[in-house]
Amino acid sequence: MSLSAEDRFAIADVVNGFALAVDDIGNVDGVVALFAPDAVYDLSALGMGTILGQEGVGEFFTTAFAGMAHNAHYMTNITASSTDAGAKAQAYGHAFSLGKDGAMMEVKARYNFDLVRSEKGWLIARLTMGLLIPMG
Amino acid sequence: MSLSAEDRFAIADVVNGFALAVDDIGNVDGVVALFAPDAVYDLSALGMGTILGQEGVGEFFTTAFAGMAHNAHYMTNITASSTDAGAKAQAYGHAFSLGKDGAMMEVKARYNFDLVRSEKGWLIARLTMGLLIPMG
Amino acid sequence: MSLSAEDRFAIADVVNGFALAVDDIGNVDGVVALFAPDAVYDLSALGMGTILGQEGVGEFFTTAFAGMAHNAHYMTNITASSTDAGAKAQAYGHAFSLGKDGAMMEVKARYNFDLVRSEKGWLIARLTMGLLIPMG
Repeated sequence: MSLSAEDRFAIADVVNGFALAVDDIGNVDGVVALFAPDAVYDLSALGMGTILGQEGVGEFFTTAFAGMAHNAHYMTNITASSTDAGAKAQAYGHAFSLGKDGAMMEVKARYNFDLVRSEKGWLIARLTMGLLIPMG
Repeated sequence: MSLSAEDRFAIADVVNGFALAVDDIGNVDGVVALFAPDAVYDLSALGMGTILGQEGVGEFFTTAFAGMAHNAHYMTNITASSTDAGAKAQAYGHAFSLGKDGAMMEVKARYNFDLVRSEKGWLIARLTMGLLIPMG
Repeated sequence: MSLSAEDRFAIADVVNGFALAVDDIGNVDGVVALFAPDAVYDLSALGMGTILGQEGVGEFFTTAFAGMAHNAHYMTNITASSTDAGAKAQAYGHAFSLGKDGAMMEVKARYNFDLVRSEKGWLIARLTMGLLIPMG
């Protein structure tokens, strides 16, 4: 089933909001606020395991942010459709991360979101990342 | 004339759907299903001629996919407006293609779509590609 | 307050329209037409000062276009919300500019737009640029 245009924009705002929060280095609360309390952040395709719940997401980004100086996550190709549980969305991310050590990391990834409606709007119930192009 | 928000999303889904199908290497049917039966795929600006019809599109991608290992087509700057025949859309594509030979190709292109309504939703009647930045 | 889906698309069209006009090298009028008469184009974060009014914007791009051979401004992560004065929007830009001297410049930037409604649709009242990743 297709989503309303309003829902499409609200979901795109979550997808882009995730990138904006991750690029606002140190803004752990901003990232966590996008996830449902029992969310799953699945990085197993990157060999980085599966992170559970808002607490797990917060810990992950606290650690990740510690080494980052500047980020830019360009999100494109955002599609979305409704599901029994809410909605699912897919996006491409072209990510650049400049570490405090001066090393630049470039990642070409695909993000798959499961989203649920809440009083605070759409929240991420599950986020799975995969690589579009293997790391160089 | 301007399109409804629902049509704007439906057309963006075709633009992004084209990238997703092309990046799902080997999915010739997925690419072909986005085109009208008598579609024109105009690659003359790239010196690659003009491809005619779903059959031509299918043959083109069958050949192209054969040499590809991984693709990432980042689609941005999607604009669209209605026309007498349906709609036209423009998008930018930042494309990366890793060949089976290990060579990476990066293309900065513009896509112009003519779209027609059908029972299956919007279909590509004509797709023209041009380069934003000449190949390095 | 949130904007209607129609306004979201109209504002995205201004954001993308700015990129398209800047990439249509020499189209000074096309760039200027997107700005309100008393617009402010704030490039101070780039050490390039603040440009005032349509006339200032026109002079700036006349000079800038003179050295450019090919441009590609990929706009992503477009978000927007209403304000007392109209609307504000943010976008990421991944910009490539090939100079007539053969030098390629790549910029990873954030654009912040203040927009006002007019008889001609949404216009840029203020555009502020900042870097997502410092220049290499």
